[in-house]
Amino acid sequence: ELREFCVALNPGRTAEFMEGLDDDEMWRVLQFAEPDRRAEIFSYFDEARQLSMLASEPAAETAVLIEEIPEDDRVDLIQGLPSEAVDEILKLLPASERRNIERLRSYAEGTAGALMTTEVAKLGERLTAVEALDELGRQASDLETIYYLYVVDDNNLLRGIVSTRQLVSSIKNKSRTLGEMMETDVVVALAGEDQESVAEKVERFNLLAIPVIDSGRQLLGIITHDDVIDVVREELTEDAQRIAAVAPLEGDFLQIGLMVLSYKRGLWLTILFFAALLTAFALRHYEDELAVHGWLVWFIPLIISSGGNSGSQSATLVITAMTGGEVKLTDLPKVLSREVCVSLLLGGFLSLIGFAVAIFVAPSILAATVIPATLLAVVFCGCLCGVTLPIMFKRLGLDPALMSNPFVAGIVDILGIVIYINVARLVLG
Amino acid sequence: ELREFCVALNPGRTAEFMEGLDDDEMWRVLQFAEPDRRAEIFSYFDEARQLSMLASEPAAETAVLIEEIPEDDRVDLIQGLPSEAVDEILKLLPASERRNIERLRSYAEGTAGALMTTEVAKLGERLTAVEALDELGRQASDLETIYYLYVVDDNNLLRGIVSTRQLVSSIKNKSRTLGEMMETDVVVALAGEDQESVAEKVERFNLLAIPVIDSGRQLLGIITHDDVIDVVREELTEDAQRIAAVAPLEGDFLQIGLMVLSYKRGLWLTILFFAALLTAFALRHYEDELAVHGWLVWFIPLIISSGGNSGSQSATLVITAMTGGEVKLTDLPKVLSREVCVSLLLGGFLSLIGFAVAIFVAPSILAATVIPATLLAVVFCGCLCGVTLPIMFKRLGLDPALMSNPFVAGIVDILGIVIYINVARLVLG
Ligand SMILES: [Mg+2]
Ligand SMILES: [Mg+2]
Ligand SMILES: [Mg+2]
Ligand SMILES: [Mg+2]
Ligand SMILES: [Mg+2]
Ligand SMILES: [Mg+2]
Ligand SMILES: [Mg+2]
Ligand SMILES: [Mg+2]
Ligand SMILES: [Mg+2]
Ligand SMILES: [Mg+2]
Ligand SMILES: [Mg+2]
Ligand SMILES: [Mg+2]
Ligand SMILES: [Mg+2]
Repeated sequence: ELREFCVALNPGRTAEFMEGLDDDEMWRVLQFAEPDRRAEIFSYFDEARQLSMLASEPAAETAVLIEEIPEDDRVDLIQGLPSEAVDEILKLLPASERRNIERLRSYAEGTAGALMTTEVAKLGERLTAVEALDELGRQASDLETIYYLYVVDDNNLLRGIVSTRQLVSSIKNKSRTLGEMMETDVVVALAGEDQESVAEKVERFNLLAIPVIDSGRQLLGIITHDDVIDVVREELTEDAQRIAAVAPLEGDFLQIGLMVLSYKRGLWLTILFFAALLTAFALRHYEDELAVHGWLVWFIPLIISSGGNSGSQSATLVITAMTGGEVKLTDLPKVLSREVCVSLLLGGFLSLIGFAVAIFVAPSILAATVIPATLLAVVFCGCLCGVTLPIMFKRLGLDPALMSNPFVAGIVDILGIVIYINVARLVLG
Repeated sequence: ELREFCVALNPGRTAEFMEGLDDDEMWRVLQFAEPDRRAEIFSYFDEARQLSMLASEPAAETAVLIEEIPEDDRVDLIQGLPSEAVDEILKLLPASERRNIERLRSYAEGTAGALMTTEVAKLGERLTAVEALDELGRQASDLETIYYLYVVDDNNLLRGIVSTRQLVSSIKNKSRTLGEMMETDVVVALAGEDQESVAEKVERFNLLAIPVIDSGRQLLGIITHDDVIDVVREELTEDAQRIAAVAPLEGDFLQIGLMVLSYKRGLWLTILFFAALLTAFALRHYEDELAVHGWLVWFIPLIISSGGNSGSQSATLVITAMTGGEVKLTDLPKVLSREVCVSLLLGGFLSLIGFAVAIFVAPSILAATVIPATLLAVVFCGCLCGVTLPIMFKRLGLDPALMSNPFVAGIVDILGIVIYINVARLVLG
């Protein structure tokens, strides 16, 4: 009945039911399934589990499994294994598979090449719709997707693309050839292209898969929609981490080494710390003012956090709008003018509350006006810094998410203190 | 040659070339394309443009276009039009289309129902592979996807699913019926299900489309992979905005009304402002200590920003790890123990720098130790708050991203001041 268990449910569900077992037990159960089913169930285990099974189970059996795992996924797995385990497995694979793995491994992480699989339907343009369907039927079990056919010439140059949908619709018209049906204006990715830009194309054109070509237009492989979803999640998570001043983890939060994690966080924390040191020097510089008007000190954290928070909001909104394609570089004037309005509204509102509190704390009503005046100015500056810096970064060709919120907050902190003391000087004389 | 222009390129590319035209010119050019091509090109214009064209062009022509737009997309568009324009267009549509629109409009935004299209291939289980392919060929032009067939019984109850891939592979075996081929353990979405959980299923099981059923297992429609990518982006962007203390925009950053935007930002800013007021009261409470040791004031922003920044890092890492499925509620002990190590490392390192600076500023070396001791404690507390609060929120059934970074920073600000003064009391007597 273990064989039954591996077949009756859908493979993802089978994998879920097996979650409680240990590596060896799981492996034994898997052997009851046919090799292709086995690979499918295996694909639903989490990566740590997959790696520990591949590293510890008999190489003869793991090699059989590796053969059945889709090309793109197995290369990722192999990259996570200790090199002795890799060598042992590779030795047991047929030469063609070994070459394929070696070739796919050569593409840098984060490029189209590292995402693609070469299991793609390549057909000649003289085939008719019916012949093509037959051919597809023969190859189906080896292909990553059968829903796009790629028409290539004798030199493997990409000529056009036909969808299985077109094929099925023109099944009546038995003599129509692929060459007549194919769309020749094909959206493609270059092997070295950044995965983020690949994902943008797939999103924009609602593709099931995108062909990957080299600079000579040779068809190398395809990237499928499921891997593109993963890229979108990865890139947006990366942005969220950058925005919070963490260098992208590039790994599982619970798996990553503590020293690596500390480094990825510490780097930015240290930079921000030096920025914050400026506030200490500024306050020291204003020592005399603060000694005379001691009550001003009480509002320092309030003022700098208001500026920092509104700046973080602005920066995040602009960064997410830029990555989502809503804001382009040319929109700067519009963004700025809208931000001026919003920041005055927000700053004005916070000033009212601040004034109400300050009246009870400050020595006089005139003195109390220092607080609302500063708040308005600081929120205004915070918002404008927040929208301008990421756009500036983008214009410089950098990632706008590098202008992290803590960084904006750091700049606004020091600005806030300078504004505060100068407003106080002006009002209190 | 305008007709040529609409056909030769792929529709997305045609749309890009038209970007410079004004609404009327675009509309005129579009009329040269066949209705289905026209709808496809139209789908690549940005939403603001689509809406302004639909609202201003002759209703007779827009109704023709609306008929050709995929069901899910046209409902979204109609929701953005002024109600008079909607009424006028609806009047011109065939009754069946009108009913379909009305029905799809009834699903709340953010549910599976609001994402689905009813243009799905429904077939009986007695059809053979060949008959099914023929039937598909006939329907193809009306279907959103032809790559999954849904097998339903006479009451429209979902019995199983067959992929076109299976169909093509078993074309040899002419007598096999859909009932024999179909997978019966189908991953489905309920019409009222949150779109985030729908996207998770599609991601996990690498689906091209997911069927939407009602509570009685009637097949209502499907959601396709391209719309799921949009959901993933939308949900992650929403999280990023929440993390920065902005209520999710639910609209284009440059289109949203300034009052609405101010409200979505102001709400949180005000809450954070009241939290920050506590720091003012705390500092006022410690008035005497600060008067005696004036130099302590200089380090206030440095200390609270170090705590806030490390707390933001922790919170963002935990939130993104939870939404990515890497961290579950049961992982809390592991997360905490790892965080203790990392925070001591980070806090220790910042303390060293802080001590080096404090030596030059503080009246004595003993006094200078206040700074590193405080930094270590504040970074430690910041990190632990940062990881604990989002997990606590999740456990309470709330969105962990609601525990925004500014909120964590606000809590750490007040904590930081209390720690600072108490360490100072201890050391300086
Ligand atoms: Mg890869
Ligand atoms: Mg799309
Ligand atoms: Mg793949
Ligand atoms: Mg994958
Ligand atoms: Mg990237
Ligand atoms: Mg990026
Ligand atoms: Mg909708
Ligand atoms: Mg997936
Ligand atoms: Mg759709
Ligand atoms: Mg869509
Ligand atoms: Mg949501
Ligand atoms: Mg969410
Ligand atoms: Mg702060």
